[in-house]
Amino acid sequence: MKHALSEASLPRGFRFSATACGLKKTGALDLALLSSDVLASVAAVFTQNLVVAAPVTVSKSHLKASRGRMRAVVINAGNANCATGTAGHAASVKTVEETARRLGCTPSEVLVCSTGVIGVPLPVEKILRALPGISRNRRHSARSFAELSLAICTTDTRPKTAASSFKMAGKRIHMVGCAKGAGMIHPNMATTLAFVATDAAIAPSLLQITLRDVTSRTFNAITIDGDTSTNDTLVVLANGEAGAPQIQDGSSAHRAFANALEEVCHSLALQIVADGEGAQRVIEINVRGAKSRSDAMRIAQTIATSPLVKTAFAGGDPNWGRIFAAAGRSGVKFDPNKVNIHMAGIPVLRRGQPLDFNERAASNRLLTPYVLLVVDLHAGRASARYWTCDFTAEYVRINASYRT
Amino acid sequence: MKHALSEASLPRGFRFSATACGLKKTGALDLALLSSDVLASVAAVFTQNLVVAAPVTVSKSHLKASRGRMRAVVINAGNANCATGTAGHAASVKTVEETARRLGCTPSEVLVCSTGVIGVPLPVEKILRALPGISRNRRHSARSFAELSLAICTTDTRPKTAASSFKMAGKRIHMVGCAKGAGMIHPNMATTLAFVATDAAIAPSLLQITLRDVTSRTFNAITIDGDTSTNDTLVVLANGEAGAPQIQDGSSAHRAFANALEEVCHSLALQIVADGEGAQRVIEINVRGAKSRSDAMRIAQTIATSPLVKTAFAGGDPNWGRIFAAAGRSGVKFDPNKVNIHMAGIPVLRRGQPLDFNERAASNRLLTPYVLLVVDLHAGRASARYWTCDFTAEYVRINASYRT
Repeated sequence: MKHALSEASLPRGFRFSATACGLKKTGALDLALLSSDVLASVAAVFTQNLVVAAPVTVSKSHLKASRGRMRAVVINAGNANCATGTAGHAASVKTVEETARRLGCTPSEVLVCSTGVIGVPLPVEKILRALPGISRNRRHSARSFAELSLAICTTDTRPKTAASSFKMAGKRIHMVGCAKGAGMIHPNMATTLAFVATDAAIAPSLLQITLRDVTSRTFNAITIDGDTSTNDTLVVLANGEAGAPQIQDGSSAHRAFANALEEVCHSLALQIVADGEGAQRVIEINVRGAKSRSDAMRIAQTIATSPLVKTAFAGGDPNWGRIFAAAGRSGVKFDPNKVNIHMAGIPVLRRGQPLDFNERAASNRLLTPYVLLVVDLHAGRASARYWTCDFTAEYVRINASYRT
Repeated sequence: MKHALSEASLPRGFRFSATACGLKKTGALDLALLSSDVLASVAAVFTQNLVVAAPVTVSKSHLKASRGRMRAVVINAGNANCATGTAGHAASVKTVEETARRLGCTPSEVLVCSTGVIGVPLPVEKILRALPGISRNRRHSARSFAELSLAICTTDTRPKTAASSFKMAGKRIHMVGCAKGAGMIHPNMATTLAFVATDAAIAPSLLQITLRDVTSRTFNAITIDGDTSTNDTLVVLANGEAGAPQIQDGSSAHRAFANALEEVCHSLALQIVADGEGAQRVIEINVRGAKSRSDAMRIAQTIATSPLVKTAFAGGDPNWGRIFAAAGRSGVKFDPNKVNIHMAGIPVLRRGQPLDFNERAASNRLLTPYVLLVVDLHAGRASARYWTCDFTAEYVRINASYRT
């Protein structure tokens, strides 16, 4: 996987731009446009929250209306345009209408995403004023993509990008992605947004199935604080401009495409966890020997969201009792007397019996940037992985001190 | 409700004692005995965690064996005797056997509770050595009860006691209770233990039904960190020594008894939240207008356990968007466009539309010891209350720094 994006890693037929339209008080980049030169297949997953922001409602209706074909995504940071009433809905509609007019397409071929403060009216005139400029300045360049990846950030300490490629029928297919999210974003939500562009040719329906599958092991297997936002959106655009034939379900090209998409999404998801507010380390929770994958996911998620577990990892405390107890309250039935737990390679529990280990050596191994935690239930053959970060005093400081 | 326990508020026929047997490194009181002079009706609720400590397993089997009649509860703090294997089970059995021998009853008439570190062998010989002394020194005195309420504490900054009484057939019925718990206790669990003693006469089956009902509105409606421990136990003993007739289901005496029990449990539960690790304030979450009580409870609990919400309250931030978003991800179906939210008496959302309010005035109202939060769904007539505390950097410090 290449993290440093070069010109050569960009998919063909996509252009990017960004500007500072005045939504971020700091004057940083806060409005971005991602467009395909031709209609692209699109797939997307959205927040499961019942309270959804206006841009999510508008984007979902456009996805239906356009039958999975899209030209562009327009994104603003600094205001989530959520719980903003009818004026908020009108603001999202105006944004896509003006974008469509500038690109010469229909509004339903444009998606819109917002991230930032909730419950504050979106000053849409700032966006409308900036749209002509960012429409004109779209470039097929690594620098423009880097600017886009910066413009979508809120409390992120760094932009998050990833790329992958594979060969198919003699052609190289390129894929790039970017994401934002650092937990409960200043001022409000873990408003994760992620965008992937590829020049592969693939039908919208197959793209959606592939995206859902990949998401379950990447973006839906991470947590920073257990709160899901009102704006979460992950969009993939595939415009076919590499010139390779259309990808067919079950083909080796489909497997290569799914692997590339998983590589990009895995990288972006882990970059989000690593940049979690106040986080010092990433913890991979690996639950094995479960009766089903959903059992394994449920236990992994309960451990991953436990404040007990996350604060222990902040201090490098090999406090496996907290992990065992979190598994016990997950709602999954298992026999505690069959459970093994390994922390950073050190066996601490075998068949439900505590093992002696060197506390100091264990603590040192936990004070590293990436810690592997394995829970084996010895109840079956299913497994799941989940990623979380530690829970630090800095996290509380960031989330308690806004507005006051 | 009387908080300062006097000799007169003690139920008749109960005796208490406590000692320092060496389980707490500080040399503080850590072993306690609560006994009734005659066989008492007993009811209890235990942790729902699948991973349970040895004392919970032993106590549950004794409850069955003794058909709801009990003489005593022996409690140690400083070691949870959980995930301690077969030796841990043997330790709990030895503890009740020795206690029964000293009191002249059968082992199945004794309950045992432990709280403290998990996964560390319990040095049971320290308990066995101290049992003759605390059996001998049992007293029917307010001071002995105060010592017992101190001995069961771990990271609690203060003991928690409550009392209530009512009249029945010309006799005064007394009830006293004590509890421990301050969140994720140093070093491990939110190991809540609570004990209530009363001289009412009531059958074990009716006592159990009454206790379950009261618990759903008190101990099962509080959270500090969302983690449930492996040792949670709440026990009520009713020995009939007040000399009043047996309480019958549905009678006015039963209502008076249930009210007194709720008063004691409500007070103890709120004292636990107020003493939550690092907590500065208690937040009452009142969800109204729900289709069912379970809907209301689910939303209240999701808000109460959200790190987003709890950190905002630490800083006095009137960040109602986090509350709305937490309700939205609770899994309960409702119409966001009908929701009202009040924070500390200030309307911030009406029928899904944000309202203007004075940020500074709101923040000042939130920086008080007790904050009321009301969410009205306008979907029905059911309601629920839930209590939580704010989430501070001090909480993280307490839970990250053990062992290292």
